[in-house]
Amino acid sequence: MQYHVNGFKAGDPDLLEAAPGHRRAGEPLPETVDVLIAGSGPAGLCLAAQLARVPQIRTMLVEPKLGPMEKGQADGISVRSMEMFQAFGFAEKVMRESVWINETTFWAPGTDAPLTRVARVDDVPDGTSEMPHVLLNQARVHDMFLDVMRHSPTRLEPDYGLKVLDLAIDPTAAEYPVTVTLEHTAPDRLGQTATLRANYVIGCDGARSNVRSAIGGALHGDAAHHAWGVMDVLAVTDFPDWRKKSFVRSQDEGILMVLPREGGHLVRLYVELDRLGEDERVADRGMGAEDIIAKAKRIFHPFDLQVKDVVWWSIYEIGHRLTDKFDDVPEGQVANRSPRVMLAGDACHTHSPKAGQGMNVSMGDTFNLGWKLISVLTGRADPALLHSYSGERRAAAKGLVEFDHKWARVVGAKAQDDLADGLPRVAREFVNNLPFTCGLTIQYEHSALTGATTHQHLATGFDIGKRFHSAPVVRLADAKPMQLGHCIDADARFRLFIFAPANDTGSQGDAVATLCDWLEHDAALPLHRHTAAGEDIDAVIDTRAVFQQSFRELDYAAMPKLLRPNVGKLGLCDYEKVFCSDLKRGEDIFEMRGIDRNAGCVVIVRPDQYVGHILPLHARDDLTAYFAGLLRVRG
Amino acid sequence: MQYHVNGFKAGDPDLLEAAPGHRRAGEPLPETVDVLIAGSGPAGLCLAAQLARVPQIRTMLVEPKLGPMEKGQADGISVRSMEMFQAFGFAEKVMRESVWINETTFWAPGTDAPLTRVARVDDVPDGTSEMPHVLLNQARVHDMFLDVMRHSPTRLEPDYGLKVLDLAIDPTAAEYPVTVTLEHTAPDRLGQTATLRANYVIGCDGARSNVRSAIGGALHGDAAHHAWGVMDVLAVTDFPDWRKKSFVRSQDEGILMVLPREGGHLVRLYVELDRLGEDERVADRGMGAEDIIAKAKRIFHPFDLQVKDVVWWSIYEIGHRLTDKFDDVPEGQVANRSPRVMLAGDACHTHSPKAGQGMNVSMGDTFNLGWKLISVLTGRADPALLHSYSGERRAAAKGLVEFDHKWARVVGAKAQDDLADGLPRVAREFVNNLPFTCGLTIQYEHSALTGATTHQHLATGFDIGKRFHSAPVVRLADAKPMQLGHCIDADARFRLFIFAPANDTGSQGDAVATLCDWLEHDAALPLHRHTAAGEDIDAVIDTRAVFQQSFRELDYAAMPKLLRPNVGKLGLCDYEKVFCSDLKRGEDIFEMRGIDRNAGCVVIVRPDQYVGHILPLHARDDLTAYFAGLLRVRG
Repeated sequence: MQYHVNGFKAGDPDLLEAAPGHRRAGEPLPETVDVLIAGSGPAGLCLAAQLARVPQIRTMLVEPKLGPMEKGQADGISVRSMEMFQAFGFAEKVMRESVWINETTFWAPGTDAPLTRVARVDDVPDGTSEMPHVLLNQARVHDMFLDVMRHSPTRLEPDYGLKVLDLAIDPTAAEYPVTVTLEHTAPDRLGQTATLRANYVIGCDGARSNVRSAIGGALHGDAAHHAWGVMDVLAVTDFPDWRKKSFVRSQDEGILMVLPREGGHLVRLYVELDRLGEDERVADRGMGAEDIIAKAKRIFHPFDLQVKDVVWWSIYEIGHRLTDKFDDVPEGQVANRSPRVMLAGDACHTHSPKAGQGMNVSMGDTFNLGWKLISVLTGRADPALLHSYSGERRAAAKGLVEFDHKWARVVGAKAQDDLADGLPRVAREFVNNLPFTCGLTIQYEHSALTGATTHQHLATGFDIGKRFHSAPVVRLADAKPMQLGHCIDADARFRLFIFAPANDTGSQGDAVATLCDWLEHDAALPLHRHTAAGEDIDAVIDTRAVFQQSFRELDYAAMPKLLRPNVGKLGLCDYEKVFCSDLKRGEDIFEMRGIDRNAGCVVIVRPDQYVGHILPLHARDDLTAYFAGLLRVRG
Repeated sequence: MQYHVNGFKAGDPDLLEAAPGHRRAGEPLPETVDVLIAGSGPAGLCLAAQLARVPQIRTMLVEPKLGPMEKGQADGISVRSMEMFQAFGFAEKVMRESVWINETTFWAPGTDAPLTRVARVDDVPDGTSEMPHVLLNQARVHDMFLDVMRHSPTRLEPDYGLKVLDLAIDPTAAEYPVTVTLEHTAPDRLGQTATLRANYVIGCDGARSNVRSAIGGALHGDAAHHAWGVMDVLAVTDFPDWRKKSFVRSQDEGILMVLPREGGHLVRLYVELDRLGEDERVADRGMGAEDIIAKAKRIFHPFDLQVKDVVWWSIYEIGHRLTDKFDDVPEGQVANRSPRVMLAGDACHTHSPKAGQGMNVSMGDTFNLGWKLISVLTGRADPALLHSYSGERRAAAKGLVEFDHKWARVVGAKAQDDLADGLPRVAREFVNNLPFTCGLTIQYEHSALTGATTHQHLATGFDIGKRFHSAPVVRLADAKPMQLGHCIDADARFRLFIFAPANDTGSQGDAVATLCDWLEHDAALPLHRHTAAGEDIDAVIDTRAVFQQSFRELDYAAMPKLLRPNVGKLGLCDYEKVFCSDLKRGEDIFEMRGIDRNAGCVVIVRPDQYVGHILPLHARDDLTAYFAGLLRVRG
């Protein structure tokens, strides 16, 4: 991590200097805010953590509960979310505190025993990501985001005890067009309301979202009419895979899933309960934790299960639902107005918890939205950029709902005798689905944000429209072995990774230096066009280069100036822009990611870590056009 | 990390449950304490962090300064210290925040240029440790220990504004034999004194230690009569190795060292200044930061150095000094009384800062002392155990002082023309010294704590008396790839690592199960003898096993019960005691550490991570004798 750039500051480097003029939670409500976030779940907090880092943006986050969550609900953190956590700076903390899921096993009735292990598979295929798949209480993920907010320049905290009751949009107003009615939920102020005006309102307020209702949205879909129980327990058992993710299918009692949890003792169980009648609701059955335990014991038989403590439990019915649009602009008006109200997380898509996707997709929604909102609110981008949010994320959510439908059928299937290549069907489907459940199959379609695949062949391991797949490199200036992707912070900046052709040493006249000189000096081109006066040269588009040689074969002092820029108040050099292949460890990023060794290429990475475009080193017009389609001219 | 063992607790798992009855810093002084620590430098805080975790021990830490340190002084953190930080739980945090030193370069006058890079070497040889060599402001290391203390059951905080003025020991008193006079240093109470009585006083109060004076100790040694300047700067330069550790020797202006620091911009320089006359003190010269800068510029010529901000600086004279004994018991009385007052860190050894050893050796002192004090104060060990502290650590400090003498001569040598195998002499010596500067050459001599080398051949990669060299393994219960050494917490427990012979699967009748059953059931033997009634079976000696097979070849359910113990209030299973070789990644701990594949062995690791003994699996008498020599019979 980089700090002290504007002078030495004692203490925790994660605690950024406070910006003046920001309201503290609990102070009297403001008349206006730039962004009002409804709901402090993973979607709301992930967005708030991004906005909180921008001193120019006044954000308010309202949460009907009276304090932060302590336990329960989601726990699955995909490798993709871990990659995102890295950009927020808390991946290491989560890795230390969480349980890592390394192997998944499958149990079914056997010929000699009522339950036998019929398959074991890697939970994350090799080479998928530098990050593990982990599980951690959703409450702790909240805490991590809350920490980022508390440490940010705006010191943002949620306003607990407040919810969005209703809102109205005046499409003709240029400033603060959304009038929001807030309602207090604390016992001493219950039912009191207040209004404020916002430039943007983001509904992260769950499946019963008032924000969604206010813009006329509805969740469409179906329910499976099948009750499931979920519980977090501390228990003693002789089931051998208690610390592995396991699918257990009994002969006659149905199925359950074992999900080990953080701390080495806690375990989550998903337990199949009863089928429901067509018009029956799960609440009608009046079932409780004891029913889940009793059913789990029957499924686990002959293994013993002694539950010592039920930490949390819930009984739910599987449903798959999706809204038509994630913002307030009807299809027919997209050309005429920009979104002012957007939805994220359960407010616009709900599904079964068993694939462990809910929290991840919700955070993915607002990681997609955050940089767009920041770009618009800081004047870097036109508000029309916000249309891309609903387009990109609804497609992702639709993919999830469809997956969830299919997966629920596979897991719930009574017969599992379809053994292809030695694996039972559920295990085979599980393996086939891993890229999806790892969060890595989302691929944004061709658009202003996602380039055409014309030059995809220059780097076959970086799929245009998919997340940037990090790989090991060595940083030239200090010979540090690291992950290239870890130089991407959640800071709303674009990255331009220049991959050098063979034998390019960064010297004047070579392709990299030629491109860098052009980027640095030509005012008609992206860096100058989109960076405002007084901003550092890398404030909007952060250019870095990767060379094919080992670090001892290159001369840092000979690198183009753009890769050694002077930044900050003191004009100090940023030494962290130039990288080499990690040849010593045999991990060559050019080989691993299929980069054309003769041609090299430029990989444009969006602020949310998705690959925006791949271009040849000489494709200056295409490079200019890409950013011109996204960012305003400011230079 | 393991938590929730006694029931679910919401929030940060590092925040342990508070134990009742502990005084808070700033409250009226107690009449008695178990341990009084003088000084909150690295030695004092490392000790306090260990003691703070033990609810039965009442510890007080006094510090003359009025608040925590903010900057300056030491910054080098050896790989050995990083391994220790892992046991405290903050290695990941330090790795993220610090700068990693990966390469060291050497500059000298060249034939074509006034300065040319004459050598570059790896700063940490491959395979040395799983940890990097890093640099971080001493103040931040303090903060990490203070966090451990704040999160511990006793919530220990330093009492700032207090120092130990004097003390007296009554060797005839059984309880609280040390009467301590404390003096206030805050302006409003300046010079006021108070007394309290302590069972143990640990002088971590620096080179001018009052604790040392009070027990009649003195630092013996010499000074080099040579002034050096040190400064932490933010600067702009065209010197290419500004982010690498570099030794720069100019033709006529002397030498300097570049040490990149945390955050990507800060750099520490050690700059050779003037030789001093025999009776001259460095303060007599009246030199300041400008003098250091001016000299650095001359040495760096023709490279440019523009200092933008001097964050901290100091001018010092090299000295090498050592006390005769690190405790209050004269040699002749060792048989009759046990230490009550001990010294650590600069209070008993001082040396040049340039080898980056000071903070490391100081923390090493109290990591050696901490578990011994805890063992004595909790009744697990006889107070005579404390004699081993001075014996073990004075030898380590003596090695450092001797090294420092030699290294100062090498670095300071005018002529560097002694080129052996292509490396200049300073680079060659630097490489030869790396095991020492990494903190890995300390080897405690044969004693009650350190077994004879009779069975060293059973594991040639674990040197008896040296630190336990961690290696990769896979944990059986959850297939997690990890470092074996990372299951050692700073919790004053011994570890018994059982390495299984080939084909041993943990089944009944195999060697591992036979040993485990014996350890579990035979009351005459270590686990029962030294563990008190009501304590978990692993409370004093924590037994773990490593098998040669891949994790999919072993059955967790078939493991001996001692390796799957029921622990805590709820009797939950501890799933983290059984490991396998990481064959998939080709990292076989048996191969890497030279473990006898046919015989297997037992490696006893002390609470401070040093190898206490290596024994054959059947050597029950030797195993019993080792612990009988250290721990009291309690079972």
